[in-house]
Amino acid sequence: MTNTISPRKAGVTELNAAVPQTLSRQSGESLVEQIVRSVETRIDDKLLRTGARMPSIRQFADTHRVSRFTVVEAYDRLVAKGFLESRRGSGFYVRERSPMLATNAASPRASEAPPPHLDVVWLVRSMFRQNPQQKMPGSGLLPVDWLDGELVANALRAISRQNQNLLLQYGNPQGFLPLRQQLQLKLAELEIAATPDQIVTTSGVTQALDIVARHFLQPGDTIFVDDPAWFLMFGSFALLGAKVVGIPRLPDGPDVAQLAELAALHKPKLYVINSVLHNPTSTSLSAAKAFQILKIAEQHDFTIVEDDIYCDMHPGSAIQPATRIAALDQLNRVIYLGGFSKTLAANLRVGFIATSEDMAKRLSDRKMLSTLTTSDLGERTVYKILSEGHYRKHVDRLRSKLDGVRDKTAKQLERVGLTVDIAPPAGMFLWVDAGCDTNVLTERGMEHGYLLAPGSLFSPSQLPSTRMRLNVGYMHDVGILRFFEREIGSLS
Amino acid sequence: MTNTISPRKAGVTELNAAVPQTLSRQSGESLVEQIVRSVETRIDDKLLRTGARMPSIRQFADTHRVSRFTVVEAYDRLVAKGFLESRRGSGFYVRERSPMLATNAASPRASEAPPPHLDVVWLVRSMFRQNPQQKMPGSGLLPVDWLDGELVANALRAISRQNQNLLLQYGNPQGFLPLRQQLQLKLAELEIAATPDQIVTTSGVTQALDIVARHFLQPGDTIFVDDPAWFLMFGSFALLGAKVVGIPRLPDGPDVAQLAELAALHKPKLYVINSVLHNPTSTSLSAAKAFQILKIAEQHDFTIVEDDIYCDMHPGSAIQPATRIAALDQLNRVIYLGGFSKTLAANLRVGFIATSEDMAKRLSDRKMLSTLTTSDLGERTVYKILSEGHYRKHVDRLRSKLDGVRDKTAKQLERVGLTVDIAPPAGMFLWVDAGCDTNVLTERGMEHGYLLAPGSLFSPSQLPSTRMRLNVGYMHDVGILRFFEREIGSLS
Repeated sequence: MTNTISPRKAGVTELNAAVPQTLSRQSGESLVEQIVRSVETRIDDKLLRTGARMPSIRQFADTHRVSRFTVVEAYDRLVAKGFLESRRGSGFYVRERSPMLATNAASPRASEAPPPHLDVVWLVRSMFRQNPQQKMPGSGLLPVDWLDGELVANALRAISRQNQNLLLQYGNPQGFLPLRQQLQLKLAELEIAATPDQIVTTSGVTQALDIVARHFLQPGDTIFVDDPAWFLMFGSFALLGAKVVGIPRLPDGPDVAQLAELAALHKPKLYVINSVLHNPTSTSLSAAKAFQILKIAEQHDFTIVEDDIYCDMHPGSAIQPATRIAALDQLNRVIYLGGFSKTLAANLRVGFIATSEDMAKRLSDRKMLSTLTTSDLGERTVYKILSEGHYRKHVDRLRSKLDGVRDKTAKQLERVGLTVDIAPPAGMFLWVDAGCDTNVLTERGMEHGYLLAPGSLFSPSQLPSTRMRLNVGYMHDVGILRFFEREIGSLS
Repeated sequence: MTNTISPRKAGVTELNAAVPQTLSRQSGESLVEQIVRSVETRIDDKLLRTGARMPSIRQFADTHRVSRFTVVEAYDRLVAKGFLESRRGSGFYVRERSPMLATNAASPRASEAPPPHLDVVWLVRSMFRQNPQQKMPGSGLLPVDWLDGELVANALRAISRQNQNLLLQYGNPQGFLPLRQQLQLKLAELEIAATPDQIVTTSGVTQALDIVARHFLQPGDTIFVDDPAWFLMFGSFALLGAKVVGIPRLPDGPDVAQLAELAALHKPKLYVINSVLHNPTSTSLSAAKAFQILKIAEQHDFTIVEDDIYCDMHPGSAIQPATRIAALDQLNRVIYLGGFSKTLAANLRVGFIATSEDMAKRLSDRKMLSTLTTSDLGERTVYKILSEGHYRKHVDRLRSKLDGVRDKTAKQLERVGLTVDIAPPAGMFLWVDAGCDTNVLTERGMEHGYLLAPGSLFSPSQLPSTRMRLNVGYMHDVGILRFFEREIGSLS
C-alpha cells in the first residue's frame, strides 16, 4: 500500500484550492479520510477543475503538518476513487469523472437530459458519495446528525460482548427470531396481526421488493407503481422483464378510477404502494381509498405490496389519518414491507416482509437462494434497540425535529420562487414545483455541488417534470436557497 | 410479550427429558436461550417425542430455580419456532415439525426420498438450525470453536468506537474502498491483478453467484457446474429458468473431453467452478486442466465463474499444486469470486467479485438494484482483521488444525466401513463412499439427530448416490462413528 512519489512543485492557487480548511486530530475521522473527503468536496465545488495539478506529497505534508505517508495514502485513495490520476514522473492531477459532468462538457445544451436509465443509477450512486452533508437536498436519508450514532454503537458493543460464537455462524434464514417477535408487537400496534412465522427479514426494503418481485413476476408481466414513486424499483422491475405502469397519486392516495381502468387493461400481478408518507409526496392514504384499492385488487386478482418504510415518521392514526391496507386485509392479499434504514441506520440493512405463513416460507427460501441469510448482526442490533425501548424515544425526537422545520422550510421555499402546493403534516419530503424543468435545475445544481432529485426520476415514464423532491433535513443551508432563487429566476 | 399460563402437572419422565442438564448464569447465552436450545436438542434427540406434554411453567421454574417469566418466554419462543404448541387450558406439547420427519411418519419405506427440490432447501434450512455442534457432519461450516469469535468481536467493538456516523449511512454500493484495496493485495498474491475498481463486494459468494447469473442468463440458457458441486446454486439458477448441466469432476479438475463435447452441444453462457479445494471433493485444479478449460471457454465463448471460497484453506501453490484460472486469464474471460464466510464468520456476510472494470460497474449497479448496498459494517470488520494481519495467523492455525484431523478421520471412517478413495491434502471436506444409498442413510441420521449431506444433493441430476460429504471438523464425536458402523452394516 506504500508508494514512493518524488515531491514536485505546484502553483499556489492549486495548493490553496486543494487544501482542507481544517484537519483535526480530535475528529472521529482519520486524517487520511479528512483529506480525501475535503479534496472530493473541492472537486465537486469546482474549486479544483479537471486537469489541475495537485500539490506534491511533500508540499501537502509540510503545509498541513501531516506525515507524507498520510498524504500518499489519501492521494492513493483519491486515485482509486477516480478523483485523481497519477501521471508517472509528473505528480497527481484532477481527473475527468462523473458521466453526467462529462455529458455536460460534451454537449452544453441544457435541454438535453442524460439517458433516463443511466440517470437513475447515477443519481443513486451520487447519493452514496460522501458529499458534504449540507449539499444533499435530494437525498432520501436524513442527515447523520439527525440520527443517533451513539445508540447504534452502544447496541453493537453490547452484542460484541455477548456470546461471541453467535457472530461466527449464519443467522436464521427467516431472520433473528426475537426481532421477528418484536416486529409482531410493532405490527399489532398498526392493527396488523402477524406471528413471527409470517415475518421474513431482508436486507432493507430494497431486497424485500426484489424478492417479492422475483417471486411473482415473469418477463412480460405488468407491475403497478405509484406515479410518482421511489425510482430505484423501476430499474429493478425492468431487469426482470416486467412492464412498469404508474398510477397517478393524488393527495389522499392513488386515482382509484384510473387504477380500476388500468387494472382491467393490464391485468397486473402486483401493485407496489406507499400507503403512509408516500415517497416523494409525504401524503397518506385515506381509509376510503384503502378500502377501494383492496376491492379493485380482489376484483382483478392482483397482490398489493404495501411498502411502509416511512411508518415511524408518522405520528400515528390517532393524531393524523393514515390507513394501512394490511390492517383491512390482514395479510391475505397484501404483502407488507417495513424497515429501519430511514429512522435508525441504513448501514445495518434491516428490513422485513410480513405476509401469510405459507408465503413467508416461500419468500424465505427464495431469499436463501439469493443471499443465504441477511445480517444476523444487524438484526440483533435492531432487536436490542427496539426491545430496550430506545427506538420509540428516538423516533419521537425525530418527528419533533421534522415538525420543527417542515413548515418553515416550505415558507422559505415559497419565498425563493418554488411552489409548495402539497403541505404534508408529517414526513421528511416536500414535493415541490419549481416551475421549470428540474432535470436542467439538477444539472445546474451539480455544477454548484448540490445533489437534487428531479421529478423525472420518480415517474415510470421518466419524462421531464417541473417537480422535485426536497429533504427538509437539508434545507437549513442558505446557499441552496440562494441557488434556487437565482436559477429558478433565470430558467422559468 | 408476557403471558399468564396457569401451572399444570406433568409426568416425571417428561420433566426429566425436558430438563436442560445445566443452566448457567455465567454463560454468554441468556437463560431463555439456554432453555430454548436445550429443549430443541431434546426434541431432536427424540428424548422428547411428538405429542409429549411439557412440564408446566411453575414446575419448570421451580426445578431450575429460574423465574416463571423466563420459562414463559422460552416456551413462547419454542412455540414461535414450531417446536411446541400451546393447547388452551392444557399446557404445552411437543409439536410435529420438520417436513422430512413428517414424510417419514407418513411413508416409512426408507427408499422413498423426499422430493429433490424441497430436499435441498430443507437440508440448507437444517444447517441453519441451532443443532448441537457435534451432530452436524454434513455442515458446510467449521464448528464455531474452530473459529475466532474474539477476533471478530474485537474488530466490531473497535469499529463501534470509531466515527459513529459511519454506522448510520449507506456504504458505497461497490463496497468499502479500503477493503477492496486489501483484496487487491490478496489477489496479487494469487497472481491475479485487480484494481479496487475491478472489485465489488457482495453478501457472501451466494449473492455474488446470484448477481452474476442474473446478469448473464436468460430463461432457457445453459449454465455448467461441476458434478458434484455446491447444491444451493442449482436452485438459484433453476429459478432463473436456466438449464443446469453438470461436468464430471475428476481428481485434478473437470473431465475436459466431456466439457468440450457438452460445450459444443449446449453453448453455455457460464461455467461455475471451484478450482481450489472443490466442494465437496476438496480436490484442486492442475495447471494443465486450467489451461485446457480456458481454451475451451474461448473456443465456445462462455464465461468462467471461478468460485474460490475455500482459497485460504489451501496452503499455497508453493506447497501444494493449485492453479486459479483467473491467474492465467487475468479477469478477461474469468469472473473470480471469494469470501470470508468459511474462514472468518459467516454472519458478517462478506464476499466479493473480481472482474473487468466495466463488468464490475455493471454488476455493482445490478447489486444496487437488488439490495442497494451490502453491509458496510461487515466490510469494515473484515477490513480491520485483514489489514491488521490477524487474518493470516488465524487461517494458518485453521489449516494446521485441519491437517491434524484429516488423515486420522479418514482412517477412522475406513474402519467403520466407509471408503475414502479421494484423500485430499488440504481442506475441510471428505467425499466418501458409504456403499449404500446416502439418502436413506441421511434419513436414518435424522432419526438420531445427525445432519448428513447425501451425494444426491451435490449433483444437478439429484439422483441417489452412495457418496456423501463429511466435514472433518465434526468427526471427533464417537456417536457418529458408531452410527455409521451400525447403519452401513445394515444397509449395504
